[in-house]
Amino acid sequence: MRTSKQYLEKLAGMRKNIYLNGEVIGRDHPVVIKRSKAIQVTFDMVDDPEFKDLLTATSHITGKTINRFTHIHQTPDDLLKKQEMTRKLCNLTGGCIQRCMGIDAMNALSVATKNADIRHGTNYYERWLKYLEYFQENDLVVSCAQTDAKGDRRFRPGEQPDPDQYVHVVERRDDGVVVRGAKLHNTMSPYADEIIVVPTRALKKTEKDYAIAFAIPADTEGIYLIGREACFSHRQPGMEAPIADYGDIESFTVFDNVFVPNERIFLNGETDIGGGLALFFALYHRHSYCGCKPGVSDVIMGATSLIADYLGIEKMDHVKEKLAELVSVAELVYAAGIAASVKSTKAASGTQIPNVIFANVGRRHAGHNIYHEYNTLCDIAGGLPATLPLSSEYNSPVVGDFVRKYVTRREGVSPENHYRAAHLASDLLTSEFATILQVAGVHGGGSPIMEDIAIMGSYDFEAKKKLAKYLAGIKEG
Amino acid sequence: MRTSKQYLEKLAGMRKNIYLNGEVIGRDHPVVIKRSKAIQVTFDMVDDPEFKDLLTATSHITGKTINRFTHIHQTPDDLLKKQEMTRKLCNLTGGCIQRCMGIDAMNALSVATKNADIRHGTNYYERWLKYLEYFQENDLVVSCAQTDAKGDRRFRPGEQPDPDQYVHVVERRDDGVVVRGAKLHNTMSPYADEIIVVPTRALKKTEKDYAIAFAIPADTEGIYLIGREACFSHRQPGMEAPIADYGDIESFTVFDNVFVPNERIFLNGETDIGGGLALFFALYHRHSYCGCKPGVSDVIMGATSLIADYLGIEKMDHVKEKLAELVSVAELVYAAGIAASVKSTKAASGTQIPNVIFANVGRRHAGHNIYHEYNTLCDIAGGLPATLPLSSEYNSPVVGDFVRKYVTRREGVSPENHYRAAHLASDLLTSEFATILQVAGVHGGGSPIMEDIAIMGSYDFEAKKKLAKYLAGIKEG
Amino acid sequence: MRTSKQYLEKLAGMRKNIYLNGEVIGRDHPVVIKRSKAIQVTFDMVDDPEFKDLLTATSHITGKTINRFTHIHQTPDDLLKKQEMTRKLCNLTGGCIQRCMGIDAMNALSVATKNADIRHGTNYYERWLKYLEYFQENDLVVSCAQTDAKGDRRFRPGEQPDPDQYVHVVERRDDGVVVRGAKLHNTMSPYADEIIVVPTRALKKTEKDYAIAFAIPADTEGIYLIGREACFSHRQPGMEAPIADYGDIESFTVFDNVFVPNERIFLNGETDIGGGLALFFALYHRHSYCGCKPGVSDVIMGATSLIADYLGIEKMDHVKEKLAELVSVAELVYAAGIAASVKSTKAASGTQIPNVIFANVGRRHAGHNIYHEYNTLCDIAGGLPATLPLSSEYNSPVVGDFVRKYVTRREGVSPENHYRAAHLASDLLTSEFATILQVAGVHGGGSPIMEDIAIMGSYDFEAKKKLAKYLAGIKEG
Amino acid sequence: MRTSKQYLEKLAGMRKNIYLNGEVIGRDHPVVIKRSKAIQVTFDMVDDPEFKDLLTATSHITGKTINRFTHIHQTPDDLLKKQEMTRKLCNLTGGCIQRCMGIDAMNALSVATKNADIRHGTNYYERWLKYLEYFQENDLVVSCAQTDAKGDRRFRPGEQPDPDQYVHVVERRDDGVVVRGAKLHNTMSPYADEIIVVPTRALKKTEKDYAIAFAIPADTEGIYLIGREACFSHRQPGMEAPIADYGDIESFTVFDNVFVPNERIFLNGETDIGGGLALFFALYHRHSYCGCKPGVSDVIMGATSLIADYLGIEKMDHVKEKLAELVSVAELVYAAGIAASVKSTKAASGTQIPNVIFANVGRRHAGHNIYHEYNTLCDIAGGLPATLPLSSEYNSPVVGDFVRKYVTRREGVSPENHYRAAHLASDLLTSEFATILQVAGVHGGGSPIMEDIAIMGSYDFEAKKKLAKYLAGIKEG
Repeated sequence: MRTSKQYLEKLAGMRKNIYLNGEVIGRDHPVVIKRSKAIQVTFDMVDDPEFKDLLTATSHITGKTINRFTHIHQTPDDLLKKQEMTRKLCNLTGGCIQRCMGIDAMNALSVATKNADIRHGTNYYERWLKYLEYFQENDLVVSCAQTDAKGDRRFRPGEQPDPDQYVHVVERRDDGVVVRGAKLHNTMSPYADEIIVVPTRALKKTEKDYAIAFAIPADTEGIYLIGREACFSHRQPGMEAPIADYGDIESFTVFDNVFVPNERIFLNGETDIGGGLALFFALYHRHSYCGCKPGVSDVIMGATSLIADYLGIEKMDHVKEKLAELVSVAELVYAAGIAASVKSTKAASGTQIPNVIFANVGRRHAGHNIYHEYNTLCDIAGGLPATLPLSSEYNSPVVGDFVRKYVTRREGVSPENHYRAAHLASDLLTSEFATILQVAGVHGGGSPIMEDIAIMGSYDFEAKKKLAKYLAGIKEG
Repeated sequence: MRTSKQYLEKLAGMRKNIYLNGEVIGRDHPVVIKRSKAIQVTFDMVDDPEFKDLLTATSHITGKTINRFTHIHQTPDDLLKKQEMTRKLCNLTGGCIQRCMGIDAMNALSVATKNADIRHGTNYYERWLKYLEYFQENDLVVSCAQTDAKGDRRFRPGEQPDPDQYVHVVERRDDGVVVRGAKLHNTMSPYADEIIVVPTRALKKTEKDYAIAFAIPADTEGIYLIGREACFSHRQPGMEAPIADYGDIESFTVFDNVFVPNERIFLNGETDIGGGLALFFALYHRHSYCGCKPGVSDVIMGATSLIADYLGIEKMDHVKEKLAELVSVAELVYAAGIAASVKSTKAASGTQIPNVIFANVGRRHAGHNIYHEYNTLCDIAGGLPATLPLSSEYNSPVVGDFVRKYVTRREGVSPENHYRAAHLASDLLTSEFATILQVAGVHGGGSPIMEDIAIMGSYDFEAKKKLAKYLAGIKEG
Repeated sequence: MRTSKQYLEKLAGMRKNIYLNGEVIGRDHPVVIKRSKAIQVTFDMVDDPEFKDLLTATSHITGKTINRFTHIHQTPDDLLKKQEMTRKLCNLTGGCIQRCMGIDAMNALSVATKNADIRHGTNYYERWLKYLEYFQENDLVVSCAQTDAKGDRRFRPGEQPDPDQYVHVVERRDDGVVVRGAKLHNTMSPYADEIIVVPTRALKKTEKDYAIAFAIPADTEGIYLIGREACFSHRQPGMEAPIADYGDIESFTVFDNVFVPNERIFLNGETDIGGGLALFFALYHRHSYCGCKPGVSDVIMGATSLIADYLGIEKMDHVKEKLAELVSVAELVYAAGIAASVKSTKAASGTQIPNVIFANVGRRHAGHNIYHEYNTLCDIAGGLPATLPLSSEYNSPVVGDFVRKYVTRREGVSPENHYRAAHLASDLLTSEFATILQVAGVHGGGSPIMEDIAIMGSYDFEAKKKLAKYLAGIKEG
Repeated sequence: MRTSKQYLEKLAGMRKNIYLNGEVIGRDHPVVIKRSKAIQVTFDMVDDPEFKDLLTATSHITGKTINRFTHIHQTPDDLLKKQEMTRKLCNLTGGCIQRCMGIDAMNALSVATKNADIRHGTNYYERWLKYLEYFQENDLVVSCAQTDAKGDRRFRPGEQPDPDQYVHVVERRDDGVVVRGAKLHNTMSPYADEIIVVPTRALKKTEKDYAIAFAIPADTEGIYLIGREACFSHRQPGMEAPIADYGDIESFTVFDNVFVPNERIFLNGETDIGGGLALFFALYHRHSYCGCKPGVSDVIMGATSLIADYLGIEKMDHVKEKLAELVSVAELVYAAGIAASVKSTKAASGTQIPNVIFANVGRRHAGHNIYHEYNTLCDIAGGLPATLPLSSEYNSPVVGDFVRKYVTRREGVSPENHYRAAHLASDLLTSEFATILQVAGVHGGGSPIMEDIAIMGSYDFEAKKKLAKYLAGIKEG
């Protein structure tokens, strides 16, 4: 297993292909190092007594101890541990651990490549196993690029006026393929070792060029990472806090005629498997959301209950009811993840697959409630998060005393702690990274309407209709 | 294990103490026999291949095969099976299996009697074990009477102007106690073998007389069962259907100076244990709700999807979204029950206790959504459930053809099946028993505000505050 | 203006064509007289000081004082008064005044017939004016039959395998037309003087036969009223109460080759006007809902706050919050009706037309919240409405004392009043007529999805997009 | 009436007492000038044909044409016009016009000062009239400072360990009073001419020192404005847009022993009037919210429908349903404001007072839905607002073509317009000012729980209980 130092050293040696704030920068740029902090945590906590058991696993192919973010789930317990690990790590970072995509993509590939081989006689699974060994050995950090630009929503991939609106193969060679297009909304691509590309949707037989999946170093020639940075905001000298360390860089990941060698191609033209792969990745990612979203809720609940405590209103009925509602959202989502783990099944490859219905109702409930949770924090915290003077005023020799005096609520809590609690609420309600977490809370892993589609595609309504017919005395039809 | 025939025979021999529709009746009265149909199902399905494994268990005290409704849960799997059994049986009865209270009360007593013995050096557990043997041997059907009349809500039990507003001990003898008061909202007491009484709330030290728990035959001298019948409605000759078999009798269960012998007393004056017993019963019952409420949802989903199918609107977006919402409610509640089972713990008595938080967020979610689910059925079914002519008109030689013609929606489905499907919606939306299920869906096992209280009493908010402090950089306080 | 005595006398003379509970009955049948009680109120209150100004109006064609239920709105104030009258009368009847359809249909016809004449050179408006004079002179009670059976929802009227699934002209004669089909969900048709038929939806040019509107006596040869009765339930001797007087009869209204004379035809083949007429009736009816639904809410709020008072919990925070929510639903809907009145416009005929957007958002909000309001009453009232013993037990010499004792909550309120309050909650939560009001609350006047359609068809989104473009600096496109 | 140039000139001459970003600055600082842009609009649009009639009024004391933001409402129509003006101006600024507090405070003072004089024989009204003349003559911009720091929420003003937690009189002189304390959450104080101070809550007789209201220049000795700036974000060179002009500065407004001369004191010790004044200001401000919140909704609806249009999904059912929901929120709130205007009453001073219930249910509905509205925009806009590259990349010679290519959705819309529409969504979802509007949408003018309190304090529940008693047959009690 790597250390975060080794991780950063490897990043430093990569080709500069990050475009941010008008510059092209490398991964040794201070902004990239700073924003990769959440990923660093996944290396740093490996030996922590509280995390050791969660954050490591035993490779089913080598028997070695590996970082769980590189593990292929073999049992329901593996799924339960991944979920718990995700929640706890998200606590540490104030909301998103960012490394889940890699593990989710690799597990999905383990299932889909085997399915492809069984159905089509290909040998993707073997290829992928070799890559897995390299992946585990090098403790890789991977961004999974799924969402295409998609152009005009009324048209399928093969019907777009601009064919590049979905990533596709533009040239087939003996030693590999050349691809073009762009994947959007890629969190942490700028500080990933590699990028895994999977299809974004079900495909028709005529859309072979879009049935492409592969893994490739993030600085490969022809890849442009067009970034946008976000962070928890406004922390100034003298008021530093752990939450301010976290943020991210999102990217448009452009593939401008990128060559992918054969050994890194895990699907190439099997359109029937392509849609399945898209769904498997979504399924694993939704199961991860059943861990990370409760982790975000923990942060919101923590801030809400702390402020209620500092305001002296913790025992008021309406406050308790709102806190109970926050608990309910978090724990229903978490329960759905547990149920999805416990009721999981085994793929042909031996990989454990979470239950589709439970994972989807969990992610869906999270997606429907994310704004509501922030609303609740806002409700309890009052107007202060929006009007809190910055630390330049908190520390001002002229008005600092006023700020300290008027942010103080109850005796026994220092002005600084009052200020820090209000600042945390401000970080969570008015910072750009918090809004990114809101948008991600709705859309990351598929928005609620995508879960509706998954549910409607898998749920056994015929059994329910049969039940209704029985109760109604309907014999047939 | 008994058969339903044996069950009914035993009922027939009991003292007449049911007051219904201006009469005093015995348990051989046709109304009682008819309304006990759900209970009969719990005997009848024991040998059914689909139910056998769920509906039987091995007694941990005798090793005999017993009906699971008399089993004390020993493992997480026992809890999972009870939950699944409950859901499936509720499907058969159109909504409520009615026998869960007995098992929930017995499991709660198994925990609380042992706890009392440990803390107070009493021997309730041994007494209770003897009763358990009798209970399992005779495959008893028990109503658990918990909710007191409660009088003026502003006063505690010991402060009520009328002390009988909570069931309490009015006389202590060498051979037992005499109790007075009434328990309300007791489903199926009129066709239960016995009644188990437990406290309804936490008690002060001065409220010893209210810390009383016992089991007693339902026809004991001094017990008056003041009933109210409800059924799925309007089924008339020529339009019978299984759902019409089901309904219930609720009762005010009055204890007018009832003598309880020592061997049937499981708590007597230990106020600190009394509140715990109330909570344990509620906890087991809320876990049962995580099975039965999805069972009710199944019936609503079945009727909704069947009607959507018959109307030819099943593929419309807004219909699919509403069906997905129904699935989401049902499966989140069910997932919470699974998580409560998987994350259960062992009591001192060896009994398996469901996780408090998961059981409560599950029951709470069900309670918050029950009316909404009926609303959704109403939404899809349109106005017809409220205006459907009765079967006297369906079968009328003059206007029957009109009814059959104008309830027909799409080709390939017979007029009768159209009519039966609409009638089922009518049963579910406009019958008295359906409204009883709505009220029970809100209040049965404790209304959502009771779950809020349970959640706020158990959830580790200090850990969440600690997290918030860490992220905010707050060192202490 | 008529009296209710005169109204009932006229009904008594009509042909027997009501099919109910296996019989054919006339309007002198006790069930019909009893169920027409709400209509009787609209005659009885005309001279009541509190209602006089609301319940009468001055005819714009004759200058005579008329019952407002026969008035054509000439000013915004007319609309405000109709709305207020509706709310107050619904209070008296516990939920639905039932006579609004007539006035809503007549106002819609006043607009549509004039529009037809302007566009097509017809003379429907003159015909209709003559009918209006007769209508006002005789103070008629009218049921408006709009909703067709509609058969397979995937097909338009002209495409149905069974053409009778929409009421349509089957023969055209010199002196009139013959129609066939059925209108469903017709509240109070069995005790209406006449029936007004209007189209149910927009029509294509090829669907001329479906573009038919007319008024006709309810006992005309060929009309079959297939009824279903509902009432607030369980009131027994010794526990009578005003709410128990009310209920209704819904009907399938079948037109089996019914002849309509020319002077009663107000639209015949003008498909472009047909859709407009359907919308105008819906619009007036939705405006009426902005009066009646707050009236229903008043009843729910009254029962909820009375019970909270009797329970002694009126001052608890969560109770106050729930009551405030009930107020908010009622008054937002009422405010929408006020805004629709104030922002109304004048039709070519001089009739005042409510604002489409406000009337629709009001009705929509009511429809989305109706089940939620009953849920709130249930929440506060507890389990008692579902388990309250009937008055046969309340009055029993054996157990009556127990019932009286254990329904009593706080001192200062008699057992009877406690019982009556709980019984009211039971009437509102578990009676068939209450469930009819729930279904009507969702679907009556068009379900929320119909309001969505009306809103999306009328709202000026282009202006909003223009605003967005301005703010975004988008110059064109 | 002033021009914005005159307004800025006056600001430039004021004493430097704004503390922002570690500096003390004057009102000629570029940041202050930029952030005062919304206020400038209220001067600039006076002669605009579309706004003229709304933005001007005739003074009831001088007969002169004045800016409506200085007008005392004399009729329901004045209230309707203020509401409409507010909505339309908020459209222009992307969300908040910021000048409403002055007019709301002045109207509240007009009522309260007269009431004080009637009850206490004081002459506040005359004083205030003189100030009004000056106010109208000079077309003043005023910030109303109401919300105190409030310290420990469990204690009343007079019980706080630190008495300064509520603004209060610390010295009484012949020529005026000296006050100390701080008002928080004061939007635009840094670019207001004057500050009006009113109490924040009901007061006890012993809290005379807290019953203080006055108007005072914003740069008076002893006043410290501790600011925090917010703006719609990320607009960079080459991508300017009107929305980027807007933002605000919030302040902690500290009164450190500030002298207020008698002629500017409008309440001084009359505790019974103090609470009323707090409520009247809240009431006028909530009525203003019934105008501004629909204005915010217009912007959200505009962005949502524009993006749906550009994505080609405008006609999808779920999109239409969500747009209809946005319309419903906006127009119900607006309808409530209309109803509050139409059902307004006249104060003793002749000022028109909005209906309490309608204004409160309107503001409450807005407060409950604000996050939900942003959620809807997020839902339709997808992940792009969170990941859109900045204009530095849009304009980059290396990757600009990629950005333009991959933000393009449908033909017929230019890449720039696609980018601008996505940028607008990003401004609305991820900028700090948008989050300020969210917090203000919950708390500004009083959070929903404050409206609950106002509703419960004013609504006639006794009438509803009387109705319930009538229907239940309850004679008394």
